[in-house]
Amino acid sequence: MAGSIYGKLFTISTWGESHGKALGVVVDGCPAGIPLCEDDIQIYLNRRKPGQNAYSTQRSEADTVEILSGVFEGKTTGTPISMLVRNQDQHSKDYSDIAISYRPGHADYCFDEKFGFRDYRGGGRSSGRETIGRVAAGAIAAKVLETLGIKLTAYTRSIGDYIIDYDKFDENEILVNPLYMPDKECSEKAGSYLKEVMSELDSIGSSVECVITGMPVGVGEPVFSKLDALLAQGIMSIGAVKAVEIGDGIEVAKSKGSYNNDNFYMNAGNVAKMTNHSGGVLGGMSDGAPIKVRASFKPTPSIYKEQKTINKDHEEITMAIKGRHDPIIGPRAVVVVEAMCAITILDLLMVNATSKIDNLKKIYEN
Amino acid sequence: MAGSIYGKLFTISTWGESHGKALGVVVDGCPAGIPLCEDDIQIYLNRRKPGQNAYSTQRSEADTVEILSGVFEGKTTGTPISMLVRNQDQHSKDYSDIAISYRPGHADYCFDEKFGFRDYRGGGRSSGRETIGRVAAGAIAAKVLETLGIKLTAYTRSIGDYIIDYDKFDENEILVNPLYMPDKECSEKAGSYLKEVMSELDSIGSSVECVITGMPVGVGEPVFSKLDALLAQGIMSIGAVKAVEIGDGIEVAKSKGSYNNDNFYMNAGNVAKMTNHSGGVLGGMSDGAPIKVRASFKPTPSIYKEQKTINKDHEEITMAIKGRHDPIIGPRAVVVVEAMCAITILDLLMVNATSKIDNLKKIYEN
Amino acid sequence: MAGSIYGKLFTISTWGESHGKALGVVVDGCPAGIPLCEDDIQIYLNRRKPGQNAYSTQRSEADTVEILSGVFEGKTTGTPISMLVRNQDQHSKDYSDIAISYRPGHADYCFDEKFGFRDYRGGGRSSGRETIGRVAAGAIAAKVLETLGIKLTAYTRSIGDYIIDYDKFDENEILVNPLYMPDKECSEKAGSYLKEVMSELDSIGSSVECVITGMPVGVGEPVFSKLDALLAQGIMSIGAVKAVEIGDGIEVAKSKGSYNNDNFYMNAGNVAKMTNHSGGVLGGMSDGAPIKVRASFKPTPSIYKEQKTINKDHEEITMAIKGRHDPIIGPRAVVVVEAMCAITILDLLMVNATSKIDNLKKIYEN
Amino acid sequence: MAGSIYGKLFTISTWGESHGKALGVVVDGCPAGIPLCEDDIQIYLNRRKPGQNAYSTQRSEADTVEILSGVFEGKTTGTPISMLVRNQDQHSKDYSDIAISYRPGHADYCFDEKFGFRDYRGGGRSSGRETIGRVAAGAIAAKVLETLGIKLTAYTRSIGDYIIDYDKFDENEILVNPLYMPDKECSEKAGSYLKEVMSELDSIGSSVECVITGMPVGVGEPVFSKLDALLAQGIMSIGAVKAVEIGDGIEVAKSKGSYNNDNFYMNAGNVAKMTNHSGGVLGGMSDGAPIKVRASFKPTPSIYKEQKTINKDHEEITMAIKGRHDPIIGPRAVVVVEAMCAITILDLLMVNATSKIDNLKKIYEN
Repeated sequence: MAGSIYGKLFTISTWGESHGKALGVVVDGCPAGIPLCEDDIQIYLNRRKPGQNAYSTQRSEADTVEILSGVFEGKTTGTPISMLVRNQDQHSKDYSDIAISYRPGHADYCFDEKFGFRDYRGGGRSSGRETIGRVAAGAIAAKVLETLGIKLTAYTRSIGDYIIDYDKFDENEILVNPLYMPDKECSEKAGSYLKEVMSELDSIGSSVECVITGMPVGVGEPVFSKLDALLAQGIMSIGAVKAVEIGDGIEVAKSKGSYNNDNFYMNAGNVAKMTNHSGGVLGGMSDGAPIKVRASFKPTPSIYKEQKTINKDHEEITMAIKGRHDPIIGPRAVVVVEAMCAITILDLLMVNATSKIDNLKKIYEN
Repeated sequence: MAGSIYGKLFTISTWGESHGKALGVVVDGCPAGIPLCEDDIQIYLNRRKPGQNAYSTQRSEADTVEILSGVFEGKTTGTPISMLVRNQDQHSKDYSDIAISYRPGHADYCFDEKFGFRDYRGGGRSSGRETIGRVAAGAIAAKVLETLGIKLTAYTRSIGDYIIDYDKFDENEILVNPLYMPDKECSEKAGSYLKEVMSELDSIGSSVECVITGMPVGVGEPVFSKLDALLAQGIMSIGAVKAVEIGDGIEVAKSKGSYNNDNFYMNAGNVAKMTNHSGGVLGGMSDGAPIKVRASFKPTPSIYKEQKTINKDHEEITMAIKGRHDPIIGPRAVVVVEAMCAITILDLLMVNATSKIDNLKKIYEN
Repeated sequence: MAGSIYGKLFTISTWGESHGKALGVVVDGCPAGIPLCEDDIQIYLNRRKPGQNAYSTQRSEADTVEILSGVFEGKTTGTPISMLVRNQDQHSKDYSDIAISYRPGHADYCFDEKFGFRDYRGGGRSSGRETIGRVAAGAIAAKVLETLGIKLTAYTRSIGDYIIDYDKFDENEILVNPLYMPDKECSEKAGSYLKEVMSELDSIGSSVECVITGMPVGVGEPVFSKLDALLAQGIMSIGAVKAVEIGDGIEVAKSKGSYNNDNFYMNAGNVAKMTNHSGGVLGGMSDGAPIKVRASFKPTPSIYKEQKTINKDHEEITMAIKGRHDPIIGPRAVVVVEAMCAITILDLLMVNATSKIDNLKKIYEN
Repeated sequence: MAGSIYGKLFTISTWGESHGKALGVVVDGCPAGIPLCEDDIQIYLNRRKPGQNAYSTQRSEADTVEILSGVFEGKTTGTPISMLVRNQDQHSKDYSDIAISYRPGHADYCFDEKFGFRDYRGGGRSSGRETIGRVAAGAIAAKVLETLGIKLTAYTRSIGDYIIDYDKFDENEILVNPLYMPDKECSEKAGSYLKEVMSELDSIGSSVECVITGMPVGVGEPVFSKLDALLAQGIMSIGAVKAVEIGDGIEVAKSKGSYNNDNFYMNAGNVAKMTNHSGGVLGGMSDGAPIKVRASFKPTPSIYKEQKTINKDHEEITMAIKGRHDPIIGPRAVVVVEAMCAITILDLLMVNATSKIDNLKKIYEN
C-alpha cells in the first residue's frame, strides 16, 4: 500500500487502522512560522467524530489529538509535524463474523487478493477512521490558507432526493446543523427521510460541496497536476466517493458554449466573470472566481438488511452486518472533503510560488 | 509548469505547444521486451487527428510519429522511449488577435497571471494538440496491458441530450463511426443536431466512457493512489473535462445501500458480482468486474459567436473567435480518455506487483 | 523541510526532534506477509542507543519502540507501519545557552536563516536522535531483504588514523565490540586514542563501511536512480557524513583501467568476477558481487573546548559546548549506515521487479 | 529504467542511446521569464563534445541542439522545454563484437540480466553520450542561477597522481585548457602522462571539482533531501564516478573537531567563516560559504589491451575493445559535473522558496 502519501511540497503520510493502537499523520513541508496548537486540530477532528447526533454511529471515541513534533513555542518550525489519535472504544467482537466473509460494497475481497490477508477488525485501513489523518493535516493546511486570505466552506448538498435550495443558503447554519446542511428546512426533511431509511435497515447516498474563495489567479500545474485534476484525485480518494464535479459538473455535457463560457468584465478595477460555470478553474488553473467542487457519496455499504455474498473459501452465504454504522456517509465526510481541498490547494499554491523568475527574485534578492 | 509528468513507475513527460516546432512525450519505466513500432503509435494518433469528418476542424496535420529511443530490434529495451510529432500546418496569423485578448472559457488570463506572459499561438500549451503526447504514451500502455489480457474500450456516450441506447451498443461501430459512438442511430441524430449547433456559430458538450476488462483483483493503492482516485486525476487533467464518474457515478447520491451494493456469487468456480454499480472499483482497488469510468466534456470554448470579454490591458471588448475549431470536444477526446486510463492502470498494475512478499519471491527466487 | 520522505515504493517518512515528545517513522509500501514484531525493531534501535560504553554519551534513553499500525496477527499487512519512540531523558537546561548562539560545525545558523527560528533544544531536528526513525525503518527493510537472501554487514572501519586490518576481519567481533569494529586489536588502540582525544576536550573523525551480499544482478535504475547514486544520497543524508565511496572509492582516480576493471569468469557454473574494485556496482546496477560502500564521518562538532563564533544578534562570542555528547560519531552511526543501505536496496529491488514484461507475466498470469 | 527523471520542481527527463536516432531531455518546471536561446545550450554542449583534443575520441559529432518547445519570443514560458540532439557519426560496425561479449568494467552483463537484452551499439543508454541531456538541462539551470547571482566553476582536479596546485589556480585557464585544468603546468605534465598511458593501450582515473559561490543560506531539505545528499546522488549518477566528497571529504575521518569546525565571525557586517572545511554545507543546508564538491572518476573501462571475460553464453573469452574511446573520463565530464550541480541546486533553491510563511506572503500578498 505505497499509496498513503499525498502532495508534492506540503506532503502528508497517513497511517492507522480502525482497531489498531492509533491513527495519525505526518505532515512534511509545512511552512515555518504558522501559529499552531492542538486545539486548532481538535476543532476539525470534532467535526468528523462519531456519536454527534441521532443519525451517526453511537461509537463514542474521544479522538483526542496529540502533536508530537514540528511545533516549538507555539509555531510550526518547518520540520515534520507528527500527530496521533489513540483508538479507545474498539468492540472487536462485533466484527468477528466479517473475518471470513466478504461484505458486499466493501473492499474485503480486494484486500485479501492484493495482500494475501487483511486486518478485518472494523474494516481495518478501509474504515472511515482512516480519515482522521486527512482531517488533522487538513486543519493545518486550512490554517496556512487562512493566513493567505483563502477560505473553505464545505457542506452537505443533498441526501437522497433532498437537495438544498441555494436561495435559502445560510452559511452560519452549517456547523450547527446535525447534517451539516446550510438549509435548515431541507435538512429537516432529509432528517425525517433518513429515519425512514434506518427503519428499513437500509442506507442512503448523499453529496457534499466545497467552495473556496480568495484564490490567487494561476494556481494549478498543467497538464497533469492541474488544480481540478488534483482536487479530483484528492476527493475521489475519500472512501465511498464515486463522482467528482467542478463548477457545472456533468451539466456541461448538455450545455452550449455560448452558455457555458463565463464572460470576463471589469468590476471596480478588478477582473471578474459574469457567471461561474467554470467553478473557478480554467485550463486547470484558478481563474479568481470561487472554486466549486462536488462529491457524490454512495450509501453506506454496511447495512443491517440481509444480503447474499461469498466467504473467504468462496462459498455462497447470506449475511446481515452487525456492529455500529451510520446510515449515511456525506455529513460526517463534509470535513474530510474540506480537508482534502485545503491540502491540495495549499500544495499547489506552494508549487506555484516558483512559476516565474520574478517570484524567485522577490525571495532571494535583497 | 512542473506538472507535465505523470505516473510513478510507468512515467510520462509530455511537452509541446500547438504552434511550436513539435510535440511529444518521453516514456520512462516501460517494461522491456514489448514488441513496438511506430505503426502501433500511429494507429492511436490517427484516432485523435483533426480533419477526419464534417464535424472536426479542417486543419490537416499529418501528425506522423517518430520513435527516437528506447526500442531496439523491434522491442522495448527498458530505457526511456522518446516520441516526437512535428507541427506542420500552423496558420499563426489566424490567432494573432488572441495575443492580447482573454477568450472566455479559455486559460489565456490564467496563463498571463501565472507566468507573466504566454505563447498565444493556437492556445500554446493549452491547445488540444497537447494530448498528442498522452495518446502516444497511451498506445504503449495499451499494448503492455493487452499482453496481460487487459482491454480498453472507449466511446462517445452522449452529445447534448443525445445519449446512446445501451441495448443497441455495438462495439464494432465505434471506430468506423464519425462521432466514435457505439450506437449508429443515436450518432445520426446527434450528427444532425451538431450541424444545427454549428449553424448557430455555437458549440455543445458531450460525454465519453471507457470500459476496461480483464483486470486482476486488487490493483490500486489506498488511500491516496486508489485506482479510482488516479483515474479521476488522469481524466480530469484532460482539457475541458468537468466531471469524472466511476460506475453509477452521481446516481449513487440518490441510491440506497440495498440497491447500490453488488452481491458476490460464484460463477463457474470464479468470484463474480450480480451487478456492477461499483464500476469495478471497491475501496479504491479493482474488484474483478469491468471498470467503468465516464468523463463530462464542456462545449468547445472557442465559438464563432460574438462574446464579451476583456483584453490584456483590462479593457472590456467584444470578440468573435476566428480560426479552425471543432464544435464539440468529446469524439476526438475518446482516444485521449482511453490513453489516460491505459497509462493509469498500467502504472498501478506495476506498483501492485510488489504488494506482497510472495510476489517478490516469485521474481527473485530461483 | 519537505525532505523527510525517502524512497519510491518502500517509502519512509521520519519525524521528531531531540527534545520533543517523541520521534518516529511511517513506513509506506512494505510488502505484506513479513513476520514482524517490536523486538525485530528494538534489536536495531539498541545498537544506536546512547550510554552503551565509555565513549558514548551517558544520556540513558530507553528508546523503546511501539508499533502502532500496519501489523496484524504478527505479520505486515501492506498498510503503513507507524513506529514511535517517546523521549524521556531530556535535560533541556543543558542546552539553554545554545538558544542564542551559533555553534561552529552545527546547523544552528542555517536553520535560523531558512525557517526564521528553530527548536534549539538538543539540536532539535538536526540531533543524532533523528536517526531513530531511519533505524526503525531499516530494521524492517533488512528483515524483508533477509527473506530474499540478502545480508548487510556494517562496521566501523577507522577512527582517526587507526584503520582495521582486513586480514584480521572477524565478523563475529562487530556486535560485541564497544566501537563496532571487526578487528579487536585495532579497536583497542583506537579506544586508547579516543580517551586521549576526550581528555583534550576534543573529538575525532571516523569511517564506516557496509557490505551487502546475496544481491540479484541488475538492481538499480539508470540514469539518476542508479544503485550507487541512491546509496550516495541515503548515506550522505546521515548527519556528519562528508564523503561516500563505492568499491575502491577515491582510489580509482589514480588507477589504470587494466587494474580497475574486474574480469568476469565462470565459477562452478556461475558468473563471477576475479576482483571487486567496482564494489558490486557496474553502470549503476548490481553486478552480483558484494556491494561495498564507505562513509567518512566528520568529528563530532560539539566539543568542550572553547571556540570562537557569533550569536543570533551577529555579535562575536566564545563558547564551550556543555551537555552530553560523544567524542566520535562513526560507531553509533554504524547501524544508521546499515539502515540506509537496507532501505535503499529494498526500494530499488521492488522497482526492479517490473523491469521486464516477463516479470509482470510471472505475477499476473495464472 | 524508471530512473531517467531527476528533480522535484525543476525536473528533467533525459532519454536516448549512443547509436539511436537522437538524444535529448525534457525540462519541466523551469521558471518563466528567463531569456533562452539555442546558443545558451550549445556553449555547454560544446564543452563535452568529443574530438576536441589529442586525448579524446576522434568521433566528430556536431551535437547541434534544437529547442522544440517551452520558449517563446526568446524567453522561457514556464511550460516543458524539450531539447534534442540528432546522432550522426555512428560507426555501428565498430561495436558488433560487443553484442555478445560482456566487457569488463561495463554494464553489459547487468543490462542483459535486468532487461533480458540490450541495445549494444556504442554502449546504448550507458554510453557517455547519455550525458547530453544532463548538460543541456544544466545549461538552463546555470542560466537561472546566474540570474540569482549564483555561479558554478568546475574543473579537472587530478589525473592519475598529477594534482593541481591550488596556489597556481587560474580560473581563466580552465576553458582554454585541453584537459580543463586550472593549473597549466600540472596540465602539461598530466598530458604527457596521458600519452604514456595511451601508448600502453591503457586508461587512467581522474577527479573533478565544482565550486559554487553566491549561495543564499539555508538551501537544502533535511533530512533526506539535504543539499549534500542530493549533490551526492546527482554526481554519483554520472557514469564512472565512484566517490563523492563535500568540503574536506574523506579527510574528515582523520580530523579533530577543533580543526574541522569552521568558526563563524563577522566580516564587514556579514556573517562569515574563518575556514571552509564544511565545503559550504552544514546540517545539509548551505552555510553561505562556497560549496565545494569533488568526484572521483574511474579510468575508462574500454581499453585496447586484451582482457579476460565471458560472453552471453557464459563462455570464457578474451577481448581487446576496438572502436574510439577516450583514455580518461574526467576532463570531458567536467561540464557534466557542473550541470548536475546546477540542476540540483536550482531545484533545492526552488523548494526552499516555500520554507517559511513570510516567503509565501511576499508572493501572494498585494
